[in-house]
Amino acid sequence: MASPSDLTGDDIARISINPPATGRVASVYSEVQASRIDHSLPLPSVFKIPFKIVDGPPSSAAGNSEEIAKLFPNLFGQPSALLVPDQTNSAISSDKKKLKIGVVLSGGQAPGGHNVICGIFDYLEEHAKGSSLFGFRGGPAGIMKGKLVELTSDFVYPYRNQGGFDMICSGRDKIETPEQFQQAEETVTKMDLDGLVVIGGDDSNTNACLLAEYFRGKNMKTRVIGCPKTIDGDLKSKEVPTSFGFDTACKIYSEMIGNVMIDARSTGKYYHFVRLMGRAASHITLECALQTHPNITIIGEEVSEKKLTLKNVTDYIVDVICKRAENGYNYGVILVPEGLIDFIPEVQELISELNEILAQGNVDEEGQWKKNLKEETLNLFEFLPQTIQEQLMLERDPHGNVQVAKIETEKMLIQMVETELEKKKEEGTYKREFMGKSHFFGYEGRCGLPTNFDATYCYALGYGAGSLLQSGKTGLISSVGNLAAPIEKWTVGGTPLTSLMDVERRHGKFKPVIKKAMVELEGAPFKKFASQREEWALKNRYISPGPIQFKGPGSDAINHTLLLELGAQA
Amino acid sequence: MASPSDLTGDDIARISINPPATGRVASVYSEVQASRIDHSLPLPSVFKIPFKIVDGPPSSAAGNSEEIAKLFPNLFGQPSALLVPDQTNSAISSDKKKLKIGVVLSGGQAPGGHNVICGIFDYLEEHAKGSSLFGFRGGPAGIMKGKLVELTSDFVYPYRNQGGFDMICSGRDKIETPEQFQQAEETVTKMDLDGLVVIGGDDSNTNACLLAEYFRGKNMKTRVIGCPKTIDGDLKSKEVPTSFGFDTACKIYSEMIGNVMIDARSTGKYYHFVRLMGRAASHITLECALQTHPNITIIGEEVSEKKLTLKNVTDYIVDVICKRAENGYNYGVILVPEGLIDFIPEVQELISELNEILAQGNVDEEGQWKKNLKEETLNLFEFLPQTIQEQLMLERDPHGNVQVAKIETEKMLIQMVETELEKKKEEGTYKREFMGKSHFFGYEGRCGLPTNFDATYCYALGYGAGSLLQSGKTGLISSVGNLAAPIEKWTVGGTPLTSLMDVERRHGKFKPVIKKAMVELEGAPFKKFASQREEWALKNRYISPGPIQFKGPGSDAINHTLLLELGAQA
Repeated sequence: MASPSDLTGDDIARISINPPATGRVASVYSEVQASRIDHSLPLPSVFKIPFKIVDGPPSSAAGNSEEIAKLFPNLFGQPSALLVPDQTNSAISSDKKKLKIGVVLSGGQAPGGHNVICGIFDYLEEHAKGSSLFGFRGGPAGIMKGKLVELTSDFVYPYRNQGGFDMICSGRDKIETPEQFQQAEETVTKMDLDGLVVIGGDDSNTNACLLAEYFRGKNMKTRVIGCPKTIDGDLKSKEVPTSFGFDTACKIYSEMIGNVMIDARSTGKYYHFVRLMGRAASHITLECALQTHPNITIIGEEVSEKKLTLKNVTDYIVDVICKRAENGYNYGVILVPEGLIDFIPEVQELISELNEILAQGNVDEEGQWKKNLKEETLNLFEFLPQTIQEQLMLERDPHGNVQVAKIETEKMLIQMVETELEKKKEEGTYKREFMGKSHFFGYEGRCGLPTNFDATYCYALGYGAGSLLQSGKTGLISSVGNLAAPIEKWTVGGTPLTSLMDVERRHGKFKPVIKKAMVELEGAPFKKFASQREEWALKNRYISPGPIQFKGPGSDAINHTLLLELGAQA
Repeated sequence: MASPSDLTGDDIARISINPPATGRVASVYSEVQASRIDHSLPLPSVFKIPFKIVDGPPSSAAGNSEEIAKLFPNLFGQPSALLVPDQTNSAISSDKKKLKIGVVLSGGQAPGGHNVICGIFDYLEEHAKGSSLFGFRGGPAGIMKGKLVELTSDFVYPYRNQGGFDMICSGRDKIETPEQFQQAEETVTKMDLDGLVVIGGDDSNTNACLLAEYFRGKNMKTRVIGCPKTIDGDLKSKEVPTSFGFDTACKIYSEMIGNVMIDARSTGKYYHFVRLMGRAASHITLECALQTHPNITIIGEEVSEKKLTLKNVTDYIVDVICKRAENGYNYGVILVPEGLIDFIPEVQELISELNEILAQGNVDEEGQWKKNLKEETLNLFEFLPQTIQEQLMLERDPHGNVQVAKIETEKMLIQMVETELEKKKEEGTYKREFMGKSHFFGYEGRCGLPTNFDATYCYALGYGAGSLLQSGKTGLISSVGNLAAPIEKWTVGGTPLTSLMDVERRHGKFKPVIKKAMVELEGAPFKKFASQREEWALKNRYISPGPIQFKGPGSDAINHTLLLELGAQA
């Protein structure tokens, strides 16, 4: 249980902000932060009346349902759950049994996490008065080590509508080994928990489902509910239309992109290369493109599907720059996803050949070692800027492997484009001066103040998670839908985690995974982008979204990706 | 005169947005941008009643008044001008003579530039109906080449309260040689201009004053008025309390800093090193520190005044990191001004010795050349991370000189801190893992949507410039004061540009300069920072300002630097 010595200075600073009688909070908050604390959050209307939970038809899996059925014998096939008004008034909301619930934040920050917790807290206050909520500190490790704090009204208050995960912090540990499952079991048993809410991405929700299965298999009382979190936007399905944090992060990045666009147009001499967070999928880059209309946007999934080479990507950029020069524009903005080079097949090949060669240690100063590279791989290596070649050869991870993640893709592209444009200059087909400026927008987007959408969506996710636990559900992910409609019409329920799963074979064993949702080239967001990108490339259709607003025009806007996927935007 | 072929696609896109009958604008605007266009700007109350201009006492210069008097025989000693209510009603506002005015944007973008132009335009509409306003395109070069466009109501409209300088763009050319002055003369004579407004920083306002002197000396009718622009905040004096753009840029950077602070606290494992724009002075870094309370802030002027070495700066950072580790904090946020190394005397010495050695070309692979460095300089060179050493030796500008500006100071500091912490680990005096993350916040701050403060301040500057020209003033910089008071009580007038000047000796000649306003270690902003930084270093007092708001809480806040300098904040 939480002892005062577990609390950091931050906690103490925050805790000292009791619900203010005067409407003012202590000086650790800015005016805007303070104004958000008491921002009241609307709830879907189903919560405003007596409701009950109805089950849908039995579910299957996203793939390999046979294997998933074997991996989750107790949970597989569960129906999804939906909250509906209950005219009989025999609803759960009248079930006043006190609950003990734990909550954990897992993985990277995403704006809105605090509001999920506030949603659970308020649900319990409203529908199961006298319940208690505990926060596991520092991610899943907190469950295994039993590090936790009771989340009281005063404790939770200063984090309402605030960014970050600092209320209970997060962590990247996983509950994987039999010993770790046993540790988790001991903790929840000792605490006599009725439920556990796991707020995390695809891996964490897979883990949540494994925990739910384990607890159910042991006939324990503790249920487990997941919540879809990740700014990357790659945890979603038909019933889970979006992960929280994506909306805020994309709007923060788009504010910055819009600003450099105006800068580009005003100075008329820079090409801004903007690398955006999002390693596995390019949703962030695509959404930012839809919000801002840059001249060039590279989508990793397209590069991968079309098997483009690094030279192809460079040529495309060079081509647009030359065409723009002909139109009199010597400036532009280019968006690149952080994970771009992971999408390029030939780069993967290069990395694996290099790792092999480096492992054998026969790298000579004269470069004879390059003869061990396949011809195509050597061509690619020689095409890379020298600084990148050196970086690949010199910087290794503790296992001696090449560190691809350390490559600053946008800087690499600038150098390659520069080299190609120099050639064109010599040929006489390009006559301007190219000046590339590099940007990486990453950390500043993960912990911003949640937008009105993320604040409200997260609150509903948490409120819904509370209702699912109260009704005894387990192995579901909290699902709030119909998001293009007014908030009162949003649907609330839970989707079986097993229904999102497929298996991957690792070390000869089947492992369950929630497949990351990638950018679909046939999906509405990509299609809209693809239909407009030529115009954006050569003409200037820049849009500058400006800073996120909490009141007034633009404050209730929802991101394009979500609206397009819901079919609510042409 | 502007021909349609001068117009870019951008212009055409913008121009097509006529004042909308429906209250909606074309799709090239985001909702927030569109909402700002019709945001009505309050004016100081002196403009709402008949006013006249009264002169103050004769002025002098900021230094070397004798030389300034010689350089500006026609302008030196001019009184400052102040707008006051005119009960007699014989005020200028009744003088309905039509004017022809030109306006030019000079140097780097700063949020609010468009509003200065709108202010001039609206002043003329209101007080000299039938006047015309022309925008010189692409900065001072536009004056010399006669590249301009007439700024009509429709043309100006879509830029109201918008960021960037793209209405007429800017440039960094200077009007310096006798031929260039003559070109300027020809342009304004041919256009029959009554006045010219130069919107720029210290250099551009010096240039404006030289033009004013030249025109006056030739008995030309064209008057010249300057406007104080620069996000760097280093153009200010008693009568010019701030330059526009500083408020917005600092708030944009502070939003991002506040976000990485929450990220640092949530993850608990990163030290974020943030480099901020501002090469010559550290006002931006200081203001961002006052807004966000980082753990460490390096102010260039302090480094310079205390003659600190790079080792001193590194040791200070390392010391705070070790103390924080003892308090259980393995994370933090560190602000560094872009121009830091320019402030370090020993770095200047190193650069000059290196340039000398490189010019002689005797640099050998074995490093014997290092023997030509002075002992202290060699020590500093050896203290630099290897990548920086290589960068200094390899990357030269077209004159063969070392390129200091290309050094990414925050990355260099991370490497140096890492090395020192490694030593401490070996000694056993530091036991944590240090992970530094680098950020540069620059371009994204120059072209944001102006804050309410910058929007209103700029509009008043432009409106005031119009009134000064109408009353025949020249060689003044538009000055809006009493900024801590409600807007209606702001004062409006003009300050003699010569009164801001000193001379510098260059190539044996005296050249007039407006001295950059540096961070004063005895000034209120630095003193407030200095009195609190120890607490910020060891405890966490992070404040996250959040995104700039245009409505509601926080939307009318003014930056700390200005308020403290005005004595309006303790």
